[in-house]
Amino acid sequence: MEDYEAILNAIMAHLNPNDIPKTDTIPVGISNRHIHLSQSAVNKLFGSNYQLTKLKDLSQPGQYACKECVTICGPKGVIEKVRILGPVRSETQVEILQSDTFKLGVKGTLRLSGDLANTPGITLIGPEGSYEISQGVIVAKRHIHMLPQDAERFEVSDGQMVTIDFAGDRGGSLNNVVIRATANSGLECHIDTEEANALGVTPGTTIKIRK
Amino acid sequence: MEDYEAILNAIMAHLNPNDIPKTDTIPVGISNRHIHLSQSAVNKLFGSNYQLTKLKDLSQPGQYACKECVTICGPKGVIEKVRILGPVRSETQVEILQSDTFKLGVKGTLRLSGDLANTPGITLIGPEGSYEISQGVIVAKRHIHMLPQDAERFEVSDGQMVTIDFAGDRGGSLNNVVIRATANSGLECHIDTEEANALGVTPGTTIKIRK
Repeated sequence: MEDYEAILNAIMAHLNPNDIPKTDTIPVGISNRHIHLSQSAVNKLFGSNYQLTKLKDLSQPGQYACKECVTICGPKGVIEKVRILGPVRSETQVEILQSDTFKLGVKGTLRLSGDLANTPGITLIGPEGSYEISQGVIVAKRHIHMLPQDAERFEVSDGQMVTIDFAGDRGGSLNNVVIRATANSGLECHIDTEEANALGVTPGTTIKIRK
Repeated sequence: MEDYEAILNAIMAHLNPNDIPKTDTIPVGISNRHIHLSQSAVNKLFGSNYQLTKLKDLSQPGQYACKECVTICGPKGVIEKVRILGPVRSETQVEILQSDTFKLGVKGTLRLSGDLANTPGITLIGPEGSYEISQGVIVAKRHIHMLPQDAERFEVSDGQMVTIDFAGDRGGSLNNVVIRATANSGLECHIDTEEANALGVTPGTTIKIRK
């Protein structure tokens, strides 16, 4: 038993974050349209006190994709099977692609997550009912999640805008990528599927920050 | 009658292309998925010797959007109401978005129009039948149409790759934009809807070439 403990301690020591060599590359995560629900939205769409079912963990600590999907309905059209991300939040937020804004007939409003004042509303349809929000539909502003100590290492600050470059046949650059330096973050650059497709970005791509 | 002729001649003189002040900006055209059909594809999909109906002229001389649409069917999915562009061509060509390649289950192959060797095939469905092509599905490589005299003015050559820059909240740059300098061209930069949405490009946007 003591042998196992010694081995485990040796592994843990090796895995100490301070011991892992740091690089200046950042992994890219590609987001498709998705929804964050409040518990009152969950209650209305799936039934009173319904608990969302975790399907798989996401890169950001504590965040996960749920088994459940909903339909989103705008004045001009409908999009089915939109994935819910958990856990529930204080406010419902619907993150769509710019092309979805035309299908749905809602204004495309480029925002960071959580910045929902004066954004369009929409109607959500679940198996147990519909739920109308008066605001909360955004096209996500591209951003890079990192810990405050990562920000220090990259010499950037929370809220700063940087440029990122992509190589390849569809290579190019994206400006105005917002640094989000917060505790409990996983280092990852988030762009949406239209941004990824336009620049030829596939899962596993890494980027460097250009200031 | 002579008065009218004099007026007409004065107008024509004013419209002489050499008299129009040249700028270094290029208008951007945004392409959604679309199809160019051969006459044998038209015959099979719409009936023998069917003639496509012009809906509206496009910016490239002689090119037009047709009233008719078709359905495209890949091994994993179907996309309905894909617009046909006329006139008919010697070979059928299906230009889709990178996101469509996932819906349809075909490989995304980045090509210039006409460069169809070793591209995926697909099945088209029209009101009178279906038509299978063994190749011809591409994701269009971004490009700039111009006359040879424009190429001279911009100091670029046919086939050269340039970079274009976009301002705005979703601003950035696209590399590897191919110059297509041919007779009977309208000066226009062509990108697809995913590229436009990723960079926040709207109709009426103009760009400058960066070499």
